[in-house]
Amino acid sequence: MDVDALDTPFLTVDRTVLERNLATSARRARDRGVAWRPHAKTHKSVAVGRRQLAHGAVGLTLATVGEAEVFAAAGLDDLFLAYPIWAVGDRAERVRVLAGAVRLRIGVDSVAGAEQLADALRGAPAQVVVEVDCGHHRTGVDPRRAGEVAARAVARGLDVVGVFTFPGHAYAPGGRETASADEGRALDVAARSLTAVGIEPLVRSGGSSPTERVDTEPHAFLHPVTETRPGVSVFGDAQQVELGSIGFADCALGVVATVVHSRDGAVVVDAGSKVLGTDRAPWATGHGRLPAHPHARVVALSEHHATVVLADEPVPAVGSRLVVVPNHVCTSVNLVDRLVVVEGHEVVDTWPVDARGANT
Amino acid sequence: MDVDALDTPFLTVDRTVLERNLATSARRARDRGVAWRPHAKTHKSVAVGRRQLAHGAVGLTLATVGEAEVFAAAGLDDLFLAYPIWAVGDRAERVRVLAGAVRLRIGVDSVAGAEQLADALRGAPAQVVVEVDCGHHRTGVDPRRAGEVAARAVARGLDVVGVFTFPGHAYAPGGRETASADEGRALDVAARSLTAVGIEPLVRSGGSSPTERVDTEPHAFLHPVTETRPGVSVFGDAQQVELGSIGFADCALGVVATVVHSRDGAVVVDAGSKVLGTDRAPWATGHGRLPAHPHARVVALSEHHATVVLADEPVPAVGSRLVVVPNHVCTSVNLVDRLVVVEGHEVVDTWPVDARGANT
Repeated sequence: MDVDALDTPFLTVDRTVLERNLATSARRARDRGVAWRPHAKTHKSVAVGRRQLAHGAVGLTLATVGEAEVFAAAGLDDLFLAYPIWAVGDRAERVRVLAGAVRLRIGVDSVAGAEQLADALRGAPAQVVVEVDCGHHRTGVDPRRAGEVAARAVARGLDVVGVFTFPGHAYAPGGRETASADEGRALDVAARSLTAVGIEPLVRSGGSSPTERVDTEPHAFLHPVTETRPGVSVFGDAQQVELGSIGFADCALGVVATVVHSRDGAVVVDAGSKVLGTDRAPWATGHGRLPAHPHARVVALSEHHATVVLADEPVPAVGSRLVVVPNHVCTSVNLVDRLVVVEGHEVVDTWPVDARGANT
Repeated sequence: MDVDALDTPFLTVDRTVLERNLATSARRARDRGVAWRPHAKTHKSVAVGRRQLAHGAVGLTLATVGEAEVFAAAGLDDLFLAYPIWAVGDRAERVRVLAGAVRLRIGVDSVAGAEQLADALRGAPAQVVVEVDCGHHRTGVDPRRAGEVAARAVARGLDVVGVFTFPGHAYAPGGRETASADEGRALDVAARSLTAVGIEPLVRSGGSSPTERVDTEPHAFLHPVTETRPGVSVFGDAQQVELGSIGFADCALGVVATVVHSRDGAVVVDAGSKVLGTDRAPWATGHGRLPAHPHARVVALSEHHATVVLADEPVPAVGSRLVVVPNHVCTSVNLVDRLVVVEGHEVVDTWPVDARGANT
């Protein structure tokens, strides 16, 4: 089937670009000597998760218990909940069931969270890792206090295997190298904090899509990074293009839209915030980018409209189709039920976004 | 069931506040002498649509053919697609089927769009209204050119019944009165443009949640507004609170979240952009508001984390629950599959978000 037969707006994934992106991420991890555990929150798709494993991923990273349940039910059995899960009530029971079904790793970032997790697991097997803050200042304890949380977790019978961090401050112009160095330093400090209380920090997990391509010196720290968790790089997005991490040719995912209104110098297409998402960093030049019109900018976004200003080029007529790469691919994918897989203009497959909306 | 038994994050609708908001919108429309046709894109829920009709709505407004299909299938039979639908291929057939099933009204804003719609309908009955731009500069023709589009539509056999506009520039501080006046003026000019080509402009549809409460002088124009289409006011949101349109007591919808990380002066909760949405106007003070902590601000948002800075008050402990009102309720509702209906702490119903993701 030709992709133009489908009603707009919809998301396409170019299979050739996707496969190339997967091979690149896998090679980068191999070259750095680290395990590759991509974050599945980006695609929420069992089909894409299976391709990542086929390319050598050691397992998947997930953000919520609900996401992990979806992937576990599909038979993917090595899952890391890289989030300080607060496991009470129904969620406590869900975590315990998951721990019995797959090889599960869970993050904690406080003594209270460790206590709660021990109560929830009631002896079910799970690896525990302590989240530390490396400069993004979201969750995570001070790396020097990782041992304190780890010791309490061990005292409660939990199997602490290491530390992790998210260098979110890499998602800013010039932030990549700084954040990557911060990540290495924080994981090293946190690992020392664990050894100081007699716990071996086997896992030192970091990484993000911007930092996965930073070639850090493997012996820069006593405890170098052992694992990377890039999410976005599977598809790429306009944010990564504007940060200079990738080019338009690396963007596997696009939103196909129809021009519904055309005027001097601008068009309005039928892809709004309910399919592109509204994420926009302060430094972004608009609400997404058009690879076929690199000088165009998406200057305004409503729920079902995007206003595109063109630069010195013919204005597409009403009824034309345009492809918009979203600013942040993770939130765009979460707005649809399926991904249309293409090779050129040919639809070759359809992948459900299995864990869409799995927020709890 | 107590609402605290549910795993976070989830969306609650306070039934008492909802019913009060519906009664208020209905009364405002009656007092102004205009028809009330609320925009269902806000709630995407058949249950809420039925309550609007019970309160006196003449029908519902929708943004996409997919949304209209969902409401039509549930038996709601007076639907206005307030969007310049480009009806080709499968969508042409879908529009024709809808026109045969319900009393359908559709927007056009170009001669090309009118031609396309006539080809799609192939004689199926539908009312057509011409969209005009009243200052928001998204879609819509210049009001003076409405007659030109209308005449072509009539020549192609379409049943043109009037004009409509969206005063989107009302969603800015101080924009309410200006946008409301612009709306009245543009609809009047557009109506005159229709009468000039011999078409009676029976429908002059305008309105938004900010402007629905502006008491315009009914005889200010030769052709006063006949209909209002507020969306957000059914639930209210932080944007409307910060614009001064409503107070926290008018917010029927909230996101219930758990504190997963607590530190000096700030907490991180498990409600991120995948449940709150990322919409943030330039003048907004954060990524949502907390009615129980009116001086707190949501200073950062990731996919599954919101960082809340508190002002001179005790910091909630890890595991506490907080309610966040999203900035823009329409995009938040579209991220979940159901709304948990409460009276106080008691869960009294669950309403599916029937048209979630119905983007095409």
